[in-house]
Amino acid sequence: MSATLHAALGPVDAAPADVAIVVDCIRATTTLSHALAAGYGEVVCVGEVDDAHAERRDGVVLGGERHGVRIEGFDLGNSPAEYAEPRGDVLVLTTTNGTRAILQSAAESGTVLVGALVNAQALVDRALAALPADGTLVVRCAGVRGAIALDDVYVAGLLLARASERLGDAFATDAARVATAVARAYPDPLAALADSQSARDLDGTGLEPDVARCAALDTLVVAPIVTASAPGRVVVTA
Amino acid sequence: MSATLHAALGPVDAAPADVAIVVDCIRATTTLSHALAAGYGEVVCVGEVDDAHAERRDGVVLGGERHGVRIEGFDLGNSPAEYAEPRGDVLVLTTTNGTRAILQSAAESGTVLVGALVNAQALVDRALAALPADGTLVVRCAGVRGAIALDDVYVAGLLLARASERLGDAFATDAARVATAVARAYPDPLAALADSQSARDLDGTGLEPDVARCAALDTLVVAPIVTASAPGRVVVTA
Repeated sequence: MSATLHAALGPVDAAPADVAIVVDCIRATTTLSHALAAGYGEVVCVGEVDDAHAERRDGVVLGGERHGVRIEGFDLGNSPAEYAEPRGDVLVLTTTNGTRAILQSAAESGTVLVGALVNAQALVDRALAALPADGTLVVRCAGVRGAIALDDVYVAGLLLARASERLGDAFATDAARVATAVARAYPDPLAALADSQSARDLDGTGLEPDVARCAALDTLVVAPIVTASAPGRVVVTA
Repeated sequence: MSATLHAALGPVDAAPADVAIVVDCIRATTTLSHALAAGYGEVVCVGEVDDAHAERRDGVVLGGERHGVRIEGFDLGNSPAEYAEPRGDVLVLTTTNGTRAILQSAAESGTVLVGALVNAQALVDRALAALPADGTLVVRCAGVRGAIALDDVYVAGLLLARASERLGDAFATDAARVATAVARAYPDPLAALADSQSARDLDGTGLEPDVARCAALDTLVVAPIVTASAPGRVVVTA
């Protein structure tokens, strides 16, 4: 028996897994990783803006975006630069693609990790420690507005290539092979991310430096994990 | 205004287009291209085995597969090697993935072409001749049993890279960029196809040489086109 490696390239692909890693590289899962690395005790991911407002209390910070910009009444947006220091114990996060993908994986998978390039190796290490010998590891790409996102597929390929190297005899699905081929095709992470729609969406917003922040490979050691899950609400901790 | 290039990487992705190219490289759209190049007057694609039997008359040849093997009562299977010479005027074809993808594109797109690596350049030439200046060109990947197929994504990338080079200023979606990255990542077509689930499905069947037949880039000049379309039945001609 050997493990299976798979990538859910598009946001609509069902992909139950023993271990799932959810990736929305530009920017939600990069931002979430920064928040936990900086010292927030937990990140509560919710699907809707109203759900976030309902979590408001002392010590709770509301963060996230719709159409790429900070939501009215929220404390913070979706830039990793805003999460260098904690402003409370709990961050409540809702974004267009990323937090919804986390909710989806939490509903269909066993262990659910969350991250991107900034904590790639930490994610691989924790994922493989949790993976049964004949288990399935899926990287779920959050995508962008319902479509496949190049940045997420690139990260999936990088993570799965590292996992494959460590496992030796794992079986890779065609979707996993597509992702690892994409990772091979780009000379470096920034080149891949810069080529994506998510990067172009930041053009002219003043948030262009976020692309390089999201491309900063292996700069955080945190591997965020879903520790509690209910419909529409999951808790992620370090 | 510039054209848009897109790839429907998975079989479930809706992707209306001005011009669509349907690809099931291993093997249906390679086989269909060989049949028209060899001299069949038309190929009638149907979704179900019973629909194929209903087309039976003099001069009609039934071809196709389920689970990779020739269908009971059919004249031919789904190997390009079986279509080197025509055995009638009309070929009725039904396969697990390819003919269904053709039916899907015929229902949602304007001009629909069908092919693979064997006629790659002919497809690009005909597609660009039919594409409005601000039109959308989609390569529809048939996939394998509902999942993304590496062979089809590779072909999509090769076709879209050639189209992009010719068009100069076309806009490529992230899915198109994923496909072209996959095409860049493999040293040659056979290496990409050999890495696919569809190739592994042929292991031990005696049909292993079909993989090399499907990898024979630019060996046919035919660019098959859908010329009549009804629900569940389309006609493809040279």
